[in-house]
Amino acid sequence: MGALHEPLAQLRAVNETSAFNRWCGFEVLSAAPGQVEIVMPWRHEAGQYAGLLHAGLAGALIETACGFAAATLVGPVLAAHYAVNCLRPATGERFIARARVVKPGRSQVFTACELYACIGADETLVATGETLLSVVAGASGP
Amino acid sequence: MGALHEPLAQLRAVNETSAFNRWCGFEVLSAAPGQVEIVMPWRHEAGQYAGLLHAGLAGALIETACGFAAATLVGPVLAAHYAVNCLRPATGERFIARARVVKPGRSQVFTACELYACIGADETLVATGETLLSVVAGASGP
Amino acid sequence: MGALHEPLAQLRAVNETSAFNRWCGFEVLSAAPGQVEIVMPWRHEAGQYAGLLHAGLAGALIETACGFAAATLVGPVLAAHYAVNCLRPATGERFIARARVVKPGRSQVFTACELYACIGADETLVATGETLLSVVAGASGP
Amino acid sequence: MGALHEPLAQLRAVNETSAFNRWCGFEVLSAAPGQVEIVMPWRHEAGQYAGLLHAGLAGALIETACGFAAATLVGPVLAAHYAVNCLRPATGERFIARARVVKPGRSQVFTACELYACIGADETLVATGETLLSVVAGASGP
Repeated sequence: MGALHEPLAQLRAVNETSAFNRWCGFEVLSAAPGQVEIVMPWRHEAGQYAGLLHAGLAGALIETACGFAAATLVGPVLAAHYAVNCLRPATGERFIARARVVKPGRSQVFTACELYACIGADETLVATGETLLSVVAGASGP
Repeated sequence: MGALHEPLAQLRAVNETSAFNRWCGFEVLSAAPGQVEIVMPWRHEAGQYAGLLHAGLAGALIETACGFAAATLVGPVLAAHYAVNCLRPATGERFIARARVVKPGRSQVFTACELYACIGADETLVATGETLLSVVAGASGP
Repeated sequence: MGALHEPLAQLRAVNETSAFNRWCGFEVLSAAPGQVEIVMPWRHEAGQYAGLLHAGLAGALIETACGFAAATLVGPVLAAHYAVNCLRPATGERFIARARVVKPGRSQVFTACELYACIGADETLVATGETLLSVVAGASGP
Repeated sequence: MGALHEPLAQLRAVNETSAFNRWCGFEVLSAAPGQVEIVMPWRHEAGQYAGLLHAGLAGALIETACGFAAATLVGPVLAAHYAVNCLRPATGERFIARARVVKPGRSQVFTACELYACIGADETLVATGETLLSVVAGASGP
């Protein structure tokens, strides 16, 4: 199906169709060919036992942003593999995941992502990650 | 602080202190030295755009089960790195993550996990993963 | 091209065509559908600065064994991603990598591997790893 | 032991003590706090069955460069985990791995690396990777 012609509008529409993304409050901040930013506001329900952002949610943000970045270039994708590095305790008012395509391909797309914890205008890098996505053949939408 | 003396009861108590685990409905099914099973019932809010279990939640289950498995042997831990392989479309009534310690250590613990989608008595392996955990020095509880 | 009909003989022939495998002294010990064992004898040139097996060679053994295991089921493959966990200092007379297919597929194959350091009849698990392989379309040999 | 005071000279000396690094022809091109470049000239013995750089050597270059980058800041380290993305077929006259520290720490250091295949003045990104290193406590040299 190929590249998204209006990546921001199309990814925002896709984001709305994912119940988990809505539940978590993910929003697409920006989208361009091969690059996407998403944000999640902090909420109490996102915490692990010590009140930090749950590492599973750090991964969900990274994997989601990576998939969106890949979709801007190749359309619908599914994650085959992803990995998350938890660099620092993750606390903030909101969390921004910035993903980019490292290498697109016909059948698979390599992506990478940084996750920032934000308080006011301050951003702290709290996690990095990467996702290897499979292109969904014959799909009709992202 | 070291190994948990009553791993099932202690991990159930820890699980209750994590707002995200409660939100998702994670429950600790079993716990023994170096081995833990957790379960999450399917709910609509856990879905990605096609209605499958969100890959981020697959990772959250794996990372949580791995952390609990490590905690049975060494007490409180934090994930440093985790990775998730998405093997098959994940649909089911509930999802069971079975984690085990591959190699414990004084400062870090290597773990691995399988994630099964369950319908009635049927189980399908839908994801695998691994987590490298840092032992929290001087902690007073898991 | 599909599954190998005589996996042990065919993989031994493939192993001979890889200059790096010969340089390192890799040998295929056993091969069955979805499972392969390879061995490398210790040699001084394989050491890192402290005289242990270089972590890069631990990964080479794991990635090679995983690729061979995948090839038994689907024919020629190329590694897209691999990861290595270095569990213990790796010293031994020889090193055996035992790989297995976790999930085969038309376009990608998930595999996992354990690496053992062997002294006499003793085996110690020194590393684990996993490899995600892409099936080489239209290839005529493994 | 802490940061290297003369990182280029010290890493070159360490590089000479690793038999595998010498066997492969690894050389340290540059070193600064948190950043290292190493190079390996192509040689026939480095090839896999199709004559490309063996994925295991791509990983060895990445893991070695990451370890050296970490050592510039914290002294002696050992790889706990590393992962390699094989983006493109790797052919060239020489291969340059450029590693950087993403997050240093007292007990562990997160690093990342790009691997380039070079022909004349042309460089092609052929692989990326990351390494999580454990700081060797009480060591007396890198």
